[in-house]
Amino acid sequence: MNAQIISIGDELLIGQTINNNAAYIGQQLDEIQINVNKIIVVGDKPDAILREFELSYVSSDLVITTGGLGPTHDDYTRECVVKFFNTELVMNFDVLDDIKKMFAKRGRELTKINENQALVPKIATTIRNENGTAPGYWIEQSDKIFIVLPGVPYEMKAMMESFVIPRLQQTMPMRDRVRKRKILQTTGIPESLLFERLGSLDELLEGAQLAFLPSQFGVKLRITVEESNDEAAQNKLVEIEQKIRTKAGRYIFGQGDDTLQQVIARLLRERGMKIAIAESCTGGYVSNLLTNISGSSHFFERGIIAYSNAAKVEILKVDEDTIVRHGAVSLDVARQMAEGVKSISGADIGISITGIMGPTGATADKPIGLVYIGYYDDKVCTAKKFVFGEDRILNKQRTAQAALDMIRRFVLGISIDE
Amino acid sequence: MNAQIISIGDELLIGQTINNNAAYIGQQLDEIQINVNKIIVVGDKPDAILREFELSYVSSDLVITTGGLGPTHDDYTRECVVKFFNTELVMNFDVLDDIKKMFAKRGRELTKINENQALVPKIATTIRNENGTAPGYWIEQSDKIFIVLPGVPYEMKAMMESFVIPRLQQTMPMRDRVRKRKILQTTGIPESLLFERLGSLDELLEGAQLAFLPSQFGVKLRITVEESNDEAAQNKLVEIEQKIRTKAGRYIFGQGDDTLQQVIARLLRERGMKIAIAESCTGGYVSNLLTNISGSSHFFERGIIAYSNAAKVEILKVDEDTIVRHGAVSLDVARQMAEGVKSISGADIGISITGIMGPTGATADKPIGLVYIGYYDDKVCTAKKFVFGEDRILNKQRTAQAALDMIRRFVLGISIDE
Repeated sequence: MNAQIISIGDELLIGQTINNNAAYIGQQLDEIQINVNKIIVVGDKPDAILREFELSYVSSDLVITTGGLGPTHDDYTRECVVKFFNTELVMNFDVLDDIKKMFAKRGRELTKINENQALVPKIATTIRNENGTAPGYWIEQSDKIFIVLPGVPYEMKAMMESFVIPRLQQTMPMRDRVRKRKILQTTGIPESLLFERLGSLDELLEGAQLAFLPSQFGVKLRITVEESNDEAAQNKLVEIEQKIRTKAGRYIFGQGDDTLQQVIARLLRERGMKIAIAESCTGGYVSNLLTNISGSSHFFERGIIAYSNAAKVEILKVDEDTIVRHGAVSLDVARQMAEGVKSISGADIGISITGIMGPTGATADKPIGLVYIGYYDDKVCTAKKFVFGEDRILNKQRTAQAALDMIRRFVLGISIDE
Repeated sequence: MNAQIISIGDELLIGQTINNNAAYIGQQLDEIQINVNKIIVVGDKPDAILREFELSYVSSDLVITTGGLGPTHDDYTRECVVKFFNTELVMNFDVLDDIKKMFAKRGRELTKINENQALVPKIATTIRNENGTAPGYWIEQSDKIFIVLPGVPYEMKAMMESFVIPRLQQTMPMRDRVRKRKILQTTGIPESLLFERLGSLDELLEGAQLAFLPSQFGVKLRITVEESNDEAAQNKLVEIEQKIRTKAGRYIFGQGDDTLQQVIARLLRERGMKIAIAESCTGGYVSNLLTNISGSSHFFERGIIAYSNAAKVEILKVDEDTIVRHGAVSLDVARQMAEGVKSISGADIGISITGIMGPTGATADKPIGLVYIGYYDDKVCTAKKFVFGEDRILNKQRTAQAALDMIRRFVLGISIDE
């Protein structure tokens, strides 16, 4: 079954609203193995909407539209549905009842405009809307399904969940193939090197699919398998994951929607360990990521944003002489900062970061993007050099990612070299 | 000029990635008065991509595509461009040079796969990519413009900003009506109260338009005027802005894309003042916002993330007794934290934050969302209570906004009461 999604609304075209609705619907359909092959966004213009109805209806088995069902002057979807299916509007008294109850509950007066929302295309099965006044429509004709939903996200989602998805599952022919997906999250290796490390994809995948999804935080690997039954699909997924882990296991920090900070939080809590952080150039970014995790007081002891040299010396006990000789951005200062923050806090791990985030601050021998990350625990005391890019915010993000990955690797006993 | 945006990538169809790119491009084009009449999302399938190229090229003056330019097996955009324009790939040595430099700087080995990214369609003007290895293309043919950009957001955005938008502005014909926009940024007042404060919009606007764009950070006011010439439009804008400022001036912290942290940075630097921050529950978030500003070392002295009580007592000299009597989340502790961080740092202003971000940590008399913000300078020593909501991340953001707005108001001599 092939589907297209039509999102209706000027606010989407000018970027005032981000199209989260289409992403949600895409995800829901993907889960029940319906292929979305196209998403279209059009503005609040009847001609344009009608044209997309026609194009989508011809080229797919299922069309889902959202938006343009409100009661105001720039809502055209219902009128386009009536025209497209050559039908008429009839009053649906159940819907009228819903609307009346909703207004009574909110203590508001019902107006003619709102009553009119109970007029629905005669050809349609009405989809009740528990959270708003615009009902949706389910239209089935000559083996095709056309579904119309409001654009308000929580209204649309409730209708998808309670009506659309269950009914689609009933309607669809039983599939003889089961599709399963898994995402592995990597960091610390660029897409091209990861691609090379995995070697021949044909051998690795044997008919399955692998997508590389890169961002500044790392590369996600999405494995898709399709097999004759659930168990076979699961086994195939496990098999491919194991092969990938053999080749690039050290770079894989999690799966699905895992973030590195969630993984660190889990690792530290499992071990009953606490961490303290001394940040210079990242200015609190790493501490912020870790304290975004609920329950962070169990593993985060304190952070020192030692931005000035005075703070480095006074609080972290960095040797003034070392700063004079090597500069505040140096391996030695990073090492001393990590040691200092561990020692004053009594935490199990001390992490430190010093660097030049840009766009200013570079010197003859120290470019923008230069970062030293220090790590100190009861067994290890080390610091490592990194060179990132030119953009200040990105540099903060990449530095944080590198620092968190360093924690992950030390805690798990993985080498911090490539 | 009519435009269409084509976003390429399976991850968009199955909702694994939200189409922020299209929203960004739509917004950028809208600002220079180019109408986007359609956004299309297609998967990583050469046939489907080619079909959308054809459809869009026929029905619009400008096409912008993103995605599918990476170096791996599921990237088809370049091959489709070559086919569509019936051209061939040639090596672009400037791009090759960019790629080599990028790899050299990061100390990584260049592979054949990466070198191949310097092969570009002969017909295209190449758009350099400072943040990645895939260049973009600008193709102009028979009054139509076809632009191809990578899908990685920060790469795409930098290329839009430095190349695409300026060049589109040069290319476009002059219009007979001039549209101008201005955004005023407010914080500390909800949409409905702001609306009431402004009184009759008809009187205020006299034919111009005003949009209220609310978010958790405050309400943006977007004024849009359309006049016969540049000067008239400018004058009208100024006139409306002045009227709005008379009615709600204290809530307006900036304009356009200003952030509150940028405004604080400017205020402090103009006055040669330095700030030090003691954060508990926000865990470094406020410090991170301020150090996102380039040159922050001129006004940011240090931050202490005093997450544990030990850190509050040892570093900030908070009285242990006060913590026992009033709790760590209290007016008194907030005041002492602000005093402590100012005194140990020698900064001109000390700010402190202590609260309960949730979802855990509430007590019988202290709900989730309870926050105290302390402020200490040479003239004022105060602390203020806030109650925000249930969501941890939103609570961090709203707390930060309130703390920054408190700095703004004190520095400018505006009352911190509503």
